[in-house]
Amino acid sequence: MGPGPSDVHPRILSAMARPTIGHLDPAFVGMMDEIKSLLQYALQTTNAMTIPVSAPGSAGMETCFVNLVEPGDKVVVCQNGVFGGRMKENVERAGGIAVMVQDDWGKAVDGNKLEETLKANRDARIVAFVHAETSTGVQSNAEELVAIAHKYDCLAIVDAVTSLAGSPLKVDQWGIDALYSGTQKCLSCAPGLSPVTFSESALDKIKARKTKVQSWFLDLNLVMGYWGGEAKRTYHHTAPVNALYGLHEALVMLQEEGIEKAWERHQRNHQVLRAGIEAMGLRFLVDEAHRLPQLNAIVVPEGVDEVRIRQRLLQEYNLEIGAGLGVLAGKVWRIGLMGFASNLKNILICLGALESVLVEENAAIQQGAAMTAAKRASA
Amino acid sequence: MGPGPSDVHPRILSAMARPTIGHLDPAFVGMMDEIKSLLQYALQTTNAMTIPVSAPGSAGMETCFVNLVEPGDKVVVCQNGVFGGRMKENVERAGGIAVMVQDDWGKAVDGNKLEETLKANRDARIVAFVHAETSTGVQSNAEELVAIAHKYDCLAIVDAVTSLAGSPLKVDQWGIDALYSGTQKCLSCAPGLSPVTFSESALDKIKARKTKVQSWFLDLNLVMGYWGGEAKRTYHHTAPVNALYGLHEALVMLQEEGIEKAWERHQRNHQVLRAGIEAMGLRFLVDEAHRLPQLNAIVVPEGVDEVRIRQRLLQEYNLEIGAGLGVLAGKVWRIGLMGFASNLKNILICLGALESVLVEENAAIQQGAAMTAAKRASA
Repeated sequence: MGPGPSDVHPRILSAMARPTIGHLDPAFVGMMDEIKSLLQYALQTTNAMTIPVSAPGSAGMETCFVNLVEPGDKVVVCQNGVFGGRMKENVERAGGIAVMVQDDWGKAVDGNKLEETLKANRDARIVAFVHAETSTGVQSNAEELVAIAHKYDCLAIVDAVTSLAGSPLKVDQWGIDALYSGTQKCLSCAPGLSPVTFSESALDKIKARKTKVQSWFLDLNLVMGYWGGEAKRTYHHTAPVNALYGLHEALVMLQEEGIEKAWERHQRNHQVLRAGIEAMGLRFLVDEAHRLPQLNAIVVPEGVDEVRIRQRLLQEYNLEIGAGLGVLAGKVWRIGLMGFASNLKNILICLGALESVLVEENAAIQQGAAMTAAKRASA
Repeated sequence: MGPGPSDVHPRILSAMARPTIGHLDPAFVGMMDEIKSLLQYALQTTNAMTIPVSAPGSAGMETCFVNLVEPGDKVVVCQNGVFGGRMKENVERAGGIAVMVQDDWGKAVDGNKLEETLKANRDARIVAFVHAETSTGVQSNAEELVAIAHKYDCLAIVDAVTSLAGSPLKVDQWGIDALYSGTQKCLSCAPGLSPVTFSESALDKIKARKTKVQSWFLDLNLVMGYWGGEAKRTYHHTAPVNALYGLHEALVMLQEEGIEKAWERHQRNHQVLRAGIEAMGLRFLVDEAHRLPQLNAIVVPEGVDEVRIRQRLLQEYNLEIGAGLGVLAGKVWRIGLMGFASNLKNILICLGALESVLVEENAAIQQGAAMTAAKRASA
């Protein structure tokens, strides 16, 4: 129940143990086509360029930036946590100029600040932001931010690593131009792959590049020769066959549940956890309006040794919760309710274990109320 | 029995289906340390910087080039197949200048040509070559080529994707400075990870860089914060946990067999296949002295529709063998005898199926001799 990798569903674990077949085998190519269309469903898009990058989310991020950013391009990056900072690194290493819009960690990206920055930087070509900040548990209004980007003739790159399958995410309806995600959060799949999608406008910018993409491995022109819809696939790299078996199974399971149902389940279970957390007297870092249901940042009570609490949960209850990152290190715990692991049993175990350990460590919390509150909220 | 991914051992498939735990979990960090030391054994090196990159072999190649090549660096690339061409792309995309040493596809890299090129390019900093060319089945003399590189004050980057665990490969004894490999060949593991190793000289060049590594994901300075030996691991990217379970199991199995024993087994089984292939009247593309035991390039007999043969083998015998690539497309088949799949049973099935299909397609081959010759060679 940390910030991911989340617990992987047994069906997905079994899928990954299927015999490895060739990455150009017709049976495998058929599965690749299914993965593409299942991913389109998960991302609510008809983008033809919707594929999993053969590496973790960080490589998905890099795929977006190295393909879209050309040397000298000005990119407005909204930062309200760890991952905005990583975007800045990506822009600069691709030869771009990053203009930062800073919001406090734990706050949503402020659309007004973004608009002011775009007014002052009319030559900006791209806006990038994180939809669901895994480091803080904040959800920003992706639809609004994309609309602002487009108003100033910018493409929008969106980090949806933690939102995919956990919170409403509508690539086409919101007009997102490029997006990367991960398999290890609300898809309940093992880490190691990064779903990405690119709009026609994004592909136009890539096709109009004057310089080669700096990464051979992540160059979409080459990757598409393998993942593209053509009858004949061109070998680019050896696909991670077994990891893709797992992703396929995860996407089939998402389709079986229905994407709206998955979003609702994450929201409902967040409310259950919240009832217990608040009954204990603990509080959330993030305002209610911007809280992610799948990533719950809980403020560590005064005087509590947060590392010790996490170690005890892991050692005594076999339960992992996450630490704070960056400026929030030592100040919050991050409790994931992602995918398969977003269920009542996990919430009750987590609340019970957390209460028990906090009481033993003499934290000033309300005792005995959390479980009842959670069970009532789940009814 | 294609050029890889090879058949994955059931123990390794099972390992990949173990429950996913956190990538910063102490139990997982302990396994990472074991992977590093098992990889050192597999590569015959004491290099501290010996880790698996969290992406396929192509990303391992890119890790070597983007970290070692700075803009303006002159790199001598020896090409005798597909992968030398990919190295050239990597050099140029990293801002380097590639000077090519060309040998025919199917021939080993010529040390004399390399030396002539280095004499004419005294400002070259790096030499890169492929130890075991998967596209042709050729083995080059890595020890000799590294010595030539060092004589001209160059670092040597070696592609060992197909050689690792299949042919003698001695990183420290041969003085290799940077090396990348893959998991999906003679380790019998699933594709998706790329073991790499870097010598102290290579790390010195990386530390002395004037520019940042262009890839954030592959920047060794950052990757080492996670994989390094420090007590506290720094989060860089989310490691592909289940894929690493598989690699760990594969490396344990290699240690159980013993690396020299694995090399001998690959060589012995190659001789068995060879006896059968030659008894059929077919011939190898590569001179005996430079043949890889794990990747057997067989010349397609005149008048035979090679695509049809491969399709029939796959459809009727559930047997995959590889096609030729590049200039060898349509001219050779590539039969892999890699890792777990390098065994007598596979060889006999392959010989039997190939003979049967060739006879049915009216190819001019010697009938009825292959199996007997192979069984005699295996005795």
